[in-house]
Amino acid sequence: MKSFASDNYAGVLPEVIEAILAANKEHASSYGNDPVTASCNQLFADIFGNDPMVRYVFNGTGANVLSVSACTQSFNSVLCADISHICNDESSAPETFTGCRFFALPTNAEGKLEPQTIAARLIRKGDMHFPQIAMVSLTQSTEYGTVYTLEELKAISAVCRQHNVYLHIDGSRLFNALASLQCSPEEFVRESGVDILSLGGTKSGMMYGEAVLAFHPDLKPLLHYKHKQSMQLASKTRFIAAQFIAMLQHQLWLRGACHANQMAQYLQQCLQTAGQVKVTRPVQANVVFACIPESWNEVLMQHTPFYVWREDINEVRLMCAWDTQKEEVDAFVALVAQIAG
Amino acid sequence: MKSFASDNYAGVLPEVIEAILAANKEHASSYGNDPVTASCNQLFADIFGNDPMVRYVFNGTGANVLSVSACTQSFNSVLCADISHICNDESSAPETFTGCRFFALPTNAEGKLEPQTIAARLIRKGDMHFPQIAMVSLTQSTEYGTVYTLEELKAISAVCRQHNVYLHIDGSRLFNALASLQCSPEEFVRESGVDILSLGGTKSGMMYGEAVLAFHPDLKPLLHYKHKQSMQLASKTRFIAAQFIAMLQHQLWLRGACHANQMAQYLQQCLQTAGQVKVTRPVQANVVFACIPESWNEVLMQHTPFYVWREDINEVRLMCAWDTQKEEVDAFVALVAQIAG
Amino acid sequence: MKSFASDNYAGVLPEVIEAILAANKEHASSYGNDPVTASCNQLFADIFGNDPMVRYVFNGTGANVLSVSACTQSFNSVLCADISHICNDESSAPETFTGCRFFALPTNAEGKLEPQTIAARLIRKGDMHFPQIAMVSLTQSTEYGTVYTLEELKAISAVCRQHNVYLHIDGSRLFNALASLQCSPEEFVRESGVDILSLGGTKSGMMYGEAVLAFHPDLKPLLHYKHKQSMQLASKTRFIAAQFIAMLQHQLWLRGACHANQMAQYLQQCLQTAGQVKVTRPVQANVVFACIPESWNEVLMQHTPFYVWREDINEVRLMCAWDTQKEEVDAFVALVAQIAG
Amino acid sequence: MKSFASDNYAGVLPEVIEAILAANKEHASSYGNDPVTASCNQLFADIFGNDPMVRYVFNGTGANVLSVSACTQSFNSVLCADISHICNDESSAPETFTGCRFFALPTNAEGKLEPQTIAARLIRKGDMHFPQIAMVSLTQSTEYGTVYTLEELKAISAVCRQHNVYLHIDGSRLFNALASLQCSPEEFVRESGVDILSLGGTKSGMMYGEAVLAFHPDLKPLLHYKHKQSMQLASKTRFIAAQFIAMLQHQLWLRGACHANQMAQYLQQCLQTAGQVKVTRPVQANVVFACIPESWNEVLMQHTPFYVWREDINEVRLMCAWDTQKEEVDAFVALVAQIAG
Repeated sequence: MKSFASDNYAGVLPEVIEAILAANKEHASSYGNDPVTASCNQLFADIFGNDPMVRYVFNGTGANVLSVSACTQSFNSVLCADISHICNDESSAPETFTGCRFFALPTNAEGKLEPQTIAARLIRKGDMHFPQIAMVSLTQSTEYGTVYTLEELKAISAVCRQHNVYLHIDGSRLFNALASLQCSPEEFVRESGVDILSLGGTKSGMMYGEAVLAFHPDLKPLLHYKHKQSMQLASKTRFIAAQFIAMLQHQLWLRGACHANQMAQYLQQCLQTAGQVKVTRPVQANVVFACIPESWNEVLMQHTPFYVWREDINEVRLMCAWDTQKEEVDAFVALVAQIAG
Repeated sequence: MKSFASDNYAGVLPEVIEAILAANKEHASSYGNDPVTASCNQLFADIFGNDPMVRYVFNGTGANVLSVSACTQSFNSVLCADISHICNDESSAPETFTGCRFFALPTNAEGKLEPQTIAARLIRKGDMHFPQIAMVSLTQSTEYGTVYTLEELKAISAVCRQHNVYLHIDGSRLFNALASLQCSPEEFVRESGVDILSLGGTKSGMMYGEAVLAFHPDLKPLLHYKHKQSMQLASKTRFIAAQFIAMLQHQLWLRGACHANQMAQYLQQCLQTAGQVKVTRPVQANVVFACIPESWNEVLMQHTPFYVWREDINEVRLMCAWDTQKEEVDAFVALVAQIAG
Repeated sequence: MKSFASDNYAGVLPEVIEAILAANKEHASSYGNDPVTASCNQLFADIFGNDPMVRYVFNGTGANVLSVSACTQSFNSVLCADISHICNDESSAPETFTGCRFFALPTNAEGKLEPQTIAARLIRKGDMHFPQIAMVSLTQSTEYGTVYTLEELKAISAVCRQHNVYLHIDGSRLFNALASLQCSPEEFVRESGVDILSLGGTKSGMMYGEAVLAFHPDLKPLLHYKHKQSMQLASKTRFIAAQFIAMLQHQLWLRGACHANQMAQYLQQCLQTAGQVKVTRPVQANVVFACIPESWNEVLMQHTPFYVWREDINEVRLMCAWDTQKEEVDAFVALVAQIAG
Repeated sequence: MKSFASDNYAGVLPEVIEAILAANKEHASSYGNDPVTASCNQLFADIFGNDPMVRYVFNGTGANVLSVSACTQSFNSVLCADISHICNDESSAPETFTGCRFFALPTNAEGKLEPQTIAARLIRKGDMHFPQIAMVSLTQSTEYGTVYTLEELKAISAVCRQHNVYLHIDGSRLFNALASLQCSPEEFVRESGVDILSLGGTKSGMMYGEAVLAFHPDLKPLLHYKHKQSMQLASKTRFIAAQFIAMLQHQLWLRGACHANQMAQYLQQCLQTAGQVKVTRPVQANVVFACIPESWNEVLMQHTPFYVWREDINEVRLMCAWDTQKEEVDAFVALVAQIAG
């Protein structure tokens, strides 16, 4: 049964499977000292530009925590969105591993941090009583499926640079955002001014594995050690690298992301014609948020599982993945129409 | 090129690949709430007995750190072997994540902790100035490729119980140890009195993934939360579980481990006939330690890579894996014979 | 020169000095195993009731961090006020030492947490992705110098009990609050339902030293170890205990607190007669918040230092201490009148 | 009753009390921004030389943990003596607060670390699997009451510099060591090459308070923040500074330390004439270690408390303090003679 619950319910892209099988030959040095990993590093450098230092990790929490640890010492603090994954869905892993404080900032109606919100909180520099702010973390695409424009990112990174704090982007769905922006990875990195990036693979159709790309030169010297220390170093790294090669070569990432985004657009369009359904957020990536009558939840979820995001207004989240089929959307929408009478 | 550097240089068992492909169907609930994971949990319960709580993690460091965090609060300390992986090869991940102190204890000539060594260090109970010892961690098979007998384990767990501390076993190569002991997983757990087990999959022929099995009932209630907090929770858990199912069903683990162990025995026998080679540790699992003339290193390593374990006496480590071929051993030994003249 | 900057600018009460001198006799067992400390423990039990476990610490940050560590494991989170000291003025000590997440909640116009605000955030119990909330921390008297009524505290502790989370009170100025409430320590503890209390000594006229009083029986067994671990255990504990004996005996705490509170009342009354001064918070303890023209700051601060609390509206904080003199208030107010013309 | 249990059983030097009383005037800025603290900083600079950055802390554990945190990031490790206070008597505070690993090294018969022992453990630089060694910590005078010579310290600091690791000295009894060496603080710092120093005040006759002196310029920029973060920043810092001024002015530290050292020498001489008493360590500072018949413990301890250091050989520790009287030594020795018959 397919679902709209999460893109991490989906399986693995066939091309990714092929790449894994191809990498499963002979022996290879462990911990990233192998030719597959070297090739993947080069591919990242070619496609993302800006001289990245690349480290392969297991999951999104690991990517985010490693990124924070690269930018901070334990007396630092981090500004993040109050709806962000790092703030709400990674247990206390960020604090336990880095010792830092996290300040949750309000977002606008689209779930985005605004530059003036950030600037207003970049306070008390040099005051030892206050955990010194060292980084800003934002999510692209956001937890609400919206996408920061390059101009919005530029404005935020300008604030960060002015106050000498790092900009981290949690890109667990960056591929969806890039597809939405019709923007190359290189342009995105250059224009956004991102200092360190958590790049998601799993939600985009990999089996497991994410990457941390450090662009700011000051972050690179210690990343090596912190990678191992954060329990995110795979002995058989080649199998993560092989998956990313499949994603990056021939723009597989773009095909998958475009498809998921289009399915969300299609779902939105269909839903808007249904009475009693109110789409609540701009649909810019691969997810539709909508308020529906609460009485519909059970029967709809039995057909296609999804999450209720806000219980008070019965706002539901309908997530599309690389493998969501038009027919599945049609079937779901037909059921909605039937219930709506 | 094959190598004797590490069993984590080897690829993935064909049966494991098949299981991954079979699991790559449709959508599945994430974070372990899927039927494949449920089946694997049941299989672990059947084969390891003793009512385990099973959690799937990414790598050995993650398994060990999660195990420590399950047994400790931050004012505790841990006794481990001075040659152990947790002491020497996991960066400061254990301290950073748990806050505990680690005391390194000397091992005997076989690289094993002895019960009296442990008992002599179980000191200062109730003294707030001393980090209160909460667990003993040992490695089976050991970093020297030796294997604790069930009697030795029983004696150690008796000491642990007497002093009310947990017994953790780092079983990154437990399958090799079980093959060596000709002992079932259930018998091993029952006789050893292990409270929590890091069970290795990667070195035994999986692509990635280890399991933490908690047996002591007091360790189970919080393991759930600590799993996520330790950054070791996979969204697509089914792909780790599928691999373990392949390993556990039809005793694939045993076939692979027996083969690797036999290759090590064969390598040892061949080497002992060569002049100037001195095997330095009992060969009980899948590794041979031997002192060779330092001048041999370069040419031998070009043929088949391996590690120098102790530089002062040029003790080298020759590790066999599930895919080590008799012909490869023969070729290596022939080269040794040729060099030895 | 006296100041309104902080009550920690004040010196030490003469009776406290006397007690220190009296305790400086002969040898005494260290780390709290001495007769002076035993007497002080008994005095706390008599005056605060509710069978407290008492531990003496050095400063307010230490008291708060030890309290948090007593109530939490590292996968937990804490709810606190967004204006609280623990959130803004203790660096990242709480996170670094405990590993927990802190969620900052908005307060009402009086700087108080409201029960419904807390209740609305006691979410996601049992969800491993979310750092499980284990305690609520509030400040009495608040950072705005307001005082929770016993009814307000009862309502908050009822929410805490209902959701099975601990209630911590940061009482660095608890004595001022008790004086304001005309309430005995015992009544306060009983009615508020506080589980663990940081009790301030330094700001009330001691040289150094605070106390942590644990009332909830579950918090006591490990407090002993966490006290040492948190670097807050004094070898010569008798000198902290002696100071607290002076404070508690003959209600010295009450005299000092009443005086400071009265000075704040007097200051407020005088200021309200001055044009262009707007008192901004209810004056319930020993501090007056007021908006004054920014151009006044420099000349007033040269006479009597104070802090600007909010720069955007030039809200200043005028703190009274046990040693604030009526003549000093008069002189300050006269200067205000003179500037105001 | 006086005791030989610990120098932290002693009270406060009269000159220190006088200094506290003198500092208790008017208001003073908090957190070290006051004239008394400024004077003390200058006095430290004059007497210890080498341009120290001085921070005042509460206790020895705080001083050591702050020192470690200044020299390390969380992926680092520390080499220390297996008999050291930081290894055995500070709970897991060092790990919990810094995240680092501590490796305990064996000491020679005098309880000292030897340069070759340290050099042999400065391994695996650049290897991410191994927590990178960032500092060596030694204790002066040692836990056995012995004193490193300047030559011994020079040899150790040479090893540290060669391997680019910091040298920390736990000087909770540094004054006793300096008195023993007849060496000025400035000469000690210059010759020892110490990078950061925990300087004890409490055991030398202060009421509370220690100082951390950072000499290496790289350690200074962040010390400010870590001081607050480590919960060791006193609001009324002037009262610690005033005590240190009393200690440093007119060489009060030297008088107190010489007296304690002389009492230990005298005690040793007297004990050596008693049969069945074997002094076990060179008496170079203010403590005597001796093996006595176990049957003597009870009656002797009733007269003058002391600790049994090693139970297996009934080695006892007899610690002298600034206030130990010759008559008290005589009385103890007379009792020994009486028991010895």
